[in-house]
Amino acid sequence: MKELFGGPGKVSGLILRMGQCLFAAASIAVMASSHGFATYTAFCYLIASMGLQFLWSFSLACLDIHALRLNRDLRNYVFLSLLVVGDWVTAILSLAAACSSAGVVVLIIKDTIMCKRNPQLSCNMFQISVALAFISWLFLAISSCVMFWLAASD
Amino acid sequence: MKELFGGPGKVSGLILRMGQCLFAAASIAVMASSHGFATYTAFCYLIASMGLQFLWSFSLACLDIHALRLNRDLRNYVFLSLLVVGDWVTAILSLAAACSSAGVVVLIIKDTIMCKRNPQLSCNMFQISVALAFISWLFLAISSCVMFWLAASD
Repeated sequence: MKELFGGPGKVSGLILRMGQCLFAAASIAVMASSHGFATYTAFCYLIASMGLQFLWSFSLACLDIHALRLNRDLRNYVFLSLLVVGDWVTAILSLAAACSSAGVVVLIIKDTIMCKRNPQLSCNMFQISVALAFISWLFLAISSCVMFWLAASD
Repeated sequence: MKELFGGPGKVSGLILRMGQCLFAAASIAVMASSHGFATYTAFCYLIASMGLQFLWSFSLACLDIHALRLNRDLRNYVFLSLLVVGDWVTAILSLAAACSSAGVVVLIIKDTIMCKRNPQLSCNMFQISVALAFISWLFLAISSCVMFWLAASD
């Protein structure tokens, strides 16, 4: 099996997982602390999707730490296939959530005057949360590609 | 190189490309003929993205027909790598466009009373166009995975 940057049980893989956790948690925190997010379905879906991504990446980060401490090799085919499916499902859900929220943000800030008419809406916070979700998805996309490549080249 | 359903220069690959073209064109036609789409950035982006997907899939469908008629083998590594990059970029752009449009559709139909207040808006047409875009993306996602698998297992 090939050695690749970001593979399971490697320091680079752990850094990617930590990045995913960190930015997903930050996205949830910013969105949850903004005013008026609950009236928008897309923002609620963003929180749910980032929550799922946080749980998935946190579990795999713990597994990476365990493997690094005990010097175990995690790269067997069944485990990699599980990682590929989980990573891809989570990545598609996260991208869908980030894009639908971005669509809504553009609508309420640029296309209509909803943000100007309701100054109590935290429009800047919505933008920051969506940006953090995109960064978190970017880390997850790198992990997903590496896992798929490892599984396919096995 | 492995033989796989949906590979380049095969009938199954051609059917996938034709499906992508057909649904992308239908999505553009429905959205462009709906009233009031131009005020929403997400819907304009959907038309642009589906246009790109149509051009990409149409070119590859022509190439598949050419290969099938002359019985040529298209599966060499450089060509596959090009297909992988093109397919993935197009697939991510299409998913982003479909999801951002879906977010906007949910907002104007469910979260707010914009559709009820403006009966001249073609809200049903927006929904149909987004659904067609998702079906087109699904065909493209299958092609992308097959190309990536073929390139990785080479």
